[in-house]
Amino acid sequence: MDIREHAQHCRAAAQVLAQLSPKAKTALLLGMADALDADAEPILAANARDLAAAQEKGTGTAMLDRLALNPARLAAVSAALREVATLPDPVGTVTRDDIRPNGIRVQKVRVPLGVIAMIYEARPNVTADAAALCIKAGNAVILRGGSEAIHSNTAIAHALKRALRDAGVPDAALTLVEDLRRETMLALLQLSDLVDLAIPRGGEGLIRFVAEHARVPVIKHYKGVCHLYVDRAADLDKAVALLVDGKTSRPAACNSLETLLVHVDVAATFLPQAAAALRERGVELRADDRARQWLPDATAATDDDYAAEYLDLILAVRMVDDLEQALAHIQQYSSDHTEVIVTEDPGAAERFVQALSSAVVMVNASSRFSDGGELGLGAEIGISTTRLHAYGPMGLEALTVERFVVRGQGQVRR
Amino acid sequence: MDIREHAQHCRAAAQVLAQLSPKAKTALLLGMADALDADAEPILAANARDLAAAQEKGTGTAMLDRLALNPARLAAVSAALREVATLPDPVGTVTRDDIRPNGIRVQKVRVPLGVIAMIYEARPNVTADAAALCIKAGNAVILRGGSEAIHSNTAIAHALKRALRDAGVPDAALTLVEDLRRETMLALLQLSDLVDLAIPRGGEGLIRFVAEHARVPVIKHYKGVCHLYVDRAADLDKAVALLVDGKTSRPAACNSLETLLVHVDVAATFLPQAAAALRERGVELRADDRARQWLPDATAATDDDYAAEYLDLILAVRMVDDLEQALAHIQQYSSDHTEVIVTEDPGAAERFVQALSSAVVMVNASSRFSDGGELGLGAEIGISTTRLHAYGPMGLEALTVERFVVRGQGQVRR
Repeated sequence: MDIREHAQHCRAAAQVLAQLSPKAKTALLLGMADALDADAEPILAANARDLAAAQEKGTGTAMLDRLALNPARLAAVSAALREVATLPDPVGTVTRDDIRPNGIRVQKVRVPLGVIAMIYEARPNVTADAAALCIKAGNAVILRGGSEAIHSNTAIAHALKRALRDAGVPDAALTLVEDLRRETMLALLQLSDLVDLAIPRGGEGLIRFVAEHARVPVIKHYKGVCHLYVDRAADLDKAVALLVDGKTSRPAACNSLETLLVHVDVAATFLPQAAAALRERGVELRADDRARQWLPDATAATDDDYAAEYLDLILAVRMVDDLEQALAHIQQYSSDHTEVIVTEDPGAAERFVQALSSAVVMVNASSRFSDGGELGLGAEIGISTTRLHAYGPMGLEALTVERFVVRGQGQVRR
Repeated sequence: MDIREHAQHCRAAAQVLAQLSPKAKTALLLGMADALDADAEPILAANARDLAAAQEKGTGTAMLDRLALNPARLAAVSAALREVATLPDPVGTVTRDDIRPNGIRVQKVRVPLGVIAMIYEARPNVTADAAALCIKAGNAVILRGGSEAIHSNTAIAHALKRALRDAGVPDAALTLVEDLRRETMLALLQLSDLVDLAIPRGGEGLIRFVAEHARVPVIKHYKGVCHLYVDRAADLDKAVALLVDGKTSRPAACNSLETLLVHVDVAATFLPQAAAALRERGVELRADDRARQWLPDATAATDDDYAAEYLDLILAVRMVDDLEQALAHIQQYSSDHTEVIVTEDPGAAERFVQALSSAVVMVNASSRFSDGGELGLGAEIGISTTRLHAYGPMGLEALTVERFVVRGQGQVRR
């Protein structure tokens, strides 16, 4: 079967999924979790094959760690599926309900998107996580993972497909692409009559490849260059805590801070405190000349530093004369992901929120909250920095769309 | 200036527009309407040049009619702008407001999309209508109209740009593409760093061209093959009225009916009544063999008839054994636009609504209500049959996206 035929089967299965009641979907998701637990042995054995092959190829330890499953990690995956099972079902939600002057009743009601293609790299847990979220929102899913994880992904898909069949759903509702040739991925991305949305997850290279070659709609984010601006009216203790949390609690996450902007009036007090706290945690500083007065250890920052997503214990720093200069800096270098102001001045906070159009704008809170779970979405399928459909962390609702249902008593227009 | 530079200026102007208060935008829209009225003379003179050129080229009367302006039509355009001015402003609307257990307040707030490219054909009123809707929702707009209307469009844009400058907004917020070469349109559609959305409006050929060549997101509908299903439990008087309205009140509209499906149990009664009403209005019928028993004037329908968007006084007819067969027919031939059931059986109505995933599904109401104004959106920038961002008629809300605003008191994640 070629990729178009696979997608056709997946699309037919999507029609069955779209009809399932919320209760049936909850049961299906619980069944998928049980199937993962039941297949722990073959899944871990398959993962061991992937790991051995990766080690043989000389894969780095960070990548090996992303690839590796063990009983605890696998149990965490099935636990996550049980959590998704109990989330509120977005399908059928009425978002507008209005009687028009002519008596017709107009509702907007959430329906599934249809078929979602997930394109991702090494992490085999995405196979289960992404499938669960898509299916919970009534969508069928085509999973195209990385070659490093092919045995793990196949074993996980094998278990999940059994749960689908047990629930009376055609197992093409979860279609794992086993043909990992680049041309097959390209063909998948052209199927605009069969695939409603592609979500790439992984490094910037993969995401750009998908965005540049897809004919199907793509929701993506390239990178997170998140800014923290310490205003002249900032509570400096809060600012230090937010800086340390944002930069060091998980430097490799896209919602970690990359650039610190400091108002000139508080720089002399704040920067030495900040530097001390960051030094303790091994953070390297790259700053402009004015900030370096107060940061003797910092090297000189270049434009590239302000554009960089380090994903590492490195922080770019710049001193600004006022809020407006901070806004101009962020507008120039923003990746439209997450920006934070620290201030006790409500006027400055409001100006910051209004002037910036990034997906997430925060006042006195850690950039690390820019995450579907932390923001109350229940789970996260990805983050969008594309200003269409969804903008910011995407939960189940972002896997649906609102359509119109109209009920009349025979009304005509003319 | 090349198209990229034009788009850069437009994007810079979008930042100014995004900051305008609702009151300022209302005033701006009223100013745009006044400017159109004030420039009626040069706009009509420019339109006369377009008409003369079109006539010289032997353009058909339907096209000439779409192109033609006169004082009454122009007054209708400025009146429409005044209506848009008074619509509720979607920007700033809070769609979610939630305090998390850690005390952070999470809101979702509507923001403009940014820069919208409208690609359209002959009708010069689109230049003003589309610009007004985009700007009301805080977006800048790049207008690429058809060459037939270039003088009219230039004169209209000239007036509207003056109103922008008078309001202190850079007039690049409304950028009319005057270079109508195909390669320039192609270049515009590649500018994914500068253009947030392209909306093509016109014939299927134009829309397919835009969809196939765009790197920027596109919202579109190719065609409207709208179905009316007359159930065994239909009120047949209502069914005749809905059929006549749906087919004949404006056959060239995308929300007009193209196919009638009739339950076998009511065919003998309904089809002769329907045929008589349609014959009076000059509608040609193309039906399957079973329906033709009751439709002596009908010719035989082919598969192509069931797939066709006639946009004319032609109707395809098919008899079905039951609701499920009607659903299967619609699922096969649907353009995801609008489908109607006529029935007094609530169970049949519910099954119809649940089983179909078209953008608009109606019970006992005319397909001709599938329109932004009729559904209560206040206005319409287009109709989407793409299951992403917007699905069905698109009003001002569809020209915005929800983003996150988070307010804390210094909370950190770890």
